[in-house]
Amino acid sequence: MFPDRLKQVQAGVQVALDDALARLADVPVVHAMRYALQGGKRIRAFLVIEGAALFGISMAQAMPAAAAVEALHAYSLVHDDLPCMDDDDLRRGQPTVHVKWDEATAVLAGDALQTLAFELCCDPSLGPADRRLDLVRALARASGAEGMVLGQALDIAAETADAPLSLAEITALQAGKTGALISFAAEAGAILAGADRAPLATYAKALGLAFQIADDILDVEGDPAKAGKRLGKDAGAGKATFVSLLGLEGAKSRARALIEEAESALLPYGATAENLRQAARFVISREM
Amino acid sequence: MFPDRLKQVQAGVQVALDDALARLADVPVVHAMRYALQGGKRIRAFLVIEGAALFGISMAQAMPAAAAVEALHAYSLVHDDLPCMDDDDLRRGQPTVHVKWDEATAVLAGDALQTLAFELCCDPSLGPADRRLDLVRALARASGAEGMVLGQALDIAAETADAPLSLAEITALQAGKTGALISFAAEAGAILAGADRAPLATYAKALGLAFQIADDILDVEGDPAKAGKRLGKDAGAGKATFVSLLGLEGAKSRARALIEEAESALLPYGATAENLRQAARFVISREM
Repeated sequence: MFPDRLKQVQAGVQVALDDALARLADVPVVHAMRYALQGGKRIRAFLVIEGAALFGISMAQAMPAAAAVEALHAYSLVHDDLPCMDDDDLRRGQPTVHVKWDEATAVLAGDALQTLAFELCCDPSLGPADRRLDLVRALARASGAEGMVLGQALDIAAETADAPLSLAEITALQAGKTGALISFAAEAGAILAGADRAPLATYAKALGLAFQIADDILDVEGDPAKAGKRLGKDAGAGKATFVSLLGLEGAKSRARALIEEAESALLPYGATAENLRQAARFVISREM
Repeated sequence: MFPDRLKQVQAGVQVALDDALARLADVPVVHAMRYALQGGKRIRAFLVIEGAALFGISMAQAMPAAAAVEALHAYSLVHDDLPCMDDDDLRRGQPTVHVKWDEATAVLAGDALQTLAFELCCDPSLGPADRRLDLVRALARASGAEGMVLGQALDIAAETADAPLSLAEITALQAGKTGALISFAAEAGAILAGADRAPLATYAKALGLAFQIADDILDVEGDPAKAGKRLGKDAGAGKATFVSLLGLEGAKSRARALIEEAESALLPYGATAENLRQAARFVISREM
């Protein structure tokens, strides 16, 4: 069942991340890295583990890749929260890294978390060297100036743009900002297995977009205490969101259609993909 | 001869970096990456190319690794120059990235330059997958929280420390902040050849320390127009440097001894290491 499996992944990935940090020096930048790696839903790690399971790769074998994607994600959150970026003081119900330490420590901790993600992709447990190298390359493509960083840059540009973004523009922005890393996570197992990535790519693309739409809905309808972060921020800033473009009901119906699309993409994998199907449904059930 | 060879490397690495950026979107964050990759002495790229030449690896083959180390170095400069870090407005005689664009663009451009460095290490021209993976791992170790980021964090901590750093502390700081990446550069060829890294590690350790001492001397004695950056900054800030700890003459004599040590480490390679020997001498001749 999905919730139990997610808990297993959450526990396993925390151990893997703690292990990766264990040999580092006892200095503030490392404390900040450890802090930034606490908590979170670990959906990306879950996607890695369950994607790998489709190809008979065990949780233990795939765990370094799951830890890598969470380290990469954590770096992006630390930098996104900086005063010069989204300027957020709360994350997962806790002070953000630059609030708890300072901006310099937040920049450096984020930098080192990105580095750690690439180092984790080199872990021998992940299999043959050529597959691990494919993983490094895929993580780089997903997270750099063609992927996540491009999406974040488009997001920042949108804030000073003359007109709110169109649906096509906001979809492209999301594909980079959150979609690329979700796609990497879902496809990592296929990469490690040397298998066809297409069905998981389709699944992840739909899931990532549904995830962002659900986030926009949460921003309007959610409970701040439960969300652990400031809400109503995008609407307040006059920013275009899927809710402002499609309406609340339109956004919900679009998210549901995307989840159906994601589930269909998993048909080739039969029953072994049940956890991934449940994960897709979980995404839109967060606050709906 | 060293100056001609350095010019060849400078031209070659600029082409490799331009190629790597060519497929990226036409957006400010990519413009900022391109800007940050212009100029510089390219000593790190030179070390990669000449280190590789010792093992019969051609310039063309090793070039992606040389481009990777320069992309990594460029990221570190963009982030180090940020207002929350060293707060520098001039670099290589030009406005720094956050001055020319803004802080958010500088954070993101630096982030994506780090990513690019890891992607470049995956380039097939570098040889077998296991060697490229060794390169990725070595770059991660050199640049993350065990290496460069740790050194930068120690440097920032030193600014608010009660007492100036001791010689041992400043040597450890330098070993991370600038030494680790110089070591990676010098050892990259041996990694790609699957050869013993020890002689080049000794060479690089001495060279890196000499490089930092020369930098401290430059900060006191240099010509700002020639250096392309603010000078006299460390002394003005009451920061411990090799010059403040050893005196100007003591620092110069220590740098000279280190260069001799670096040259001796190259003895096993005979005449093929002549360019690396000349590079070592060049480091301390910059302003002395």
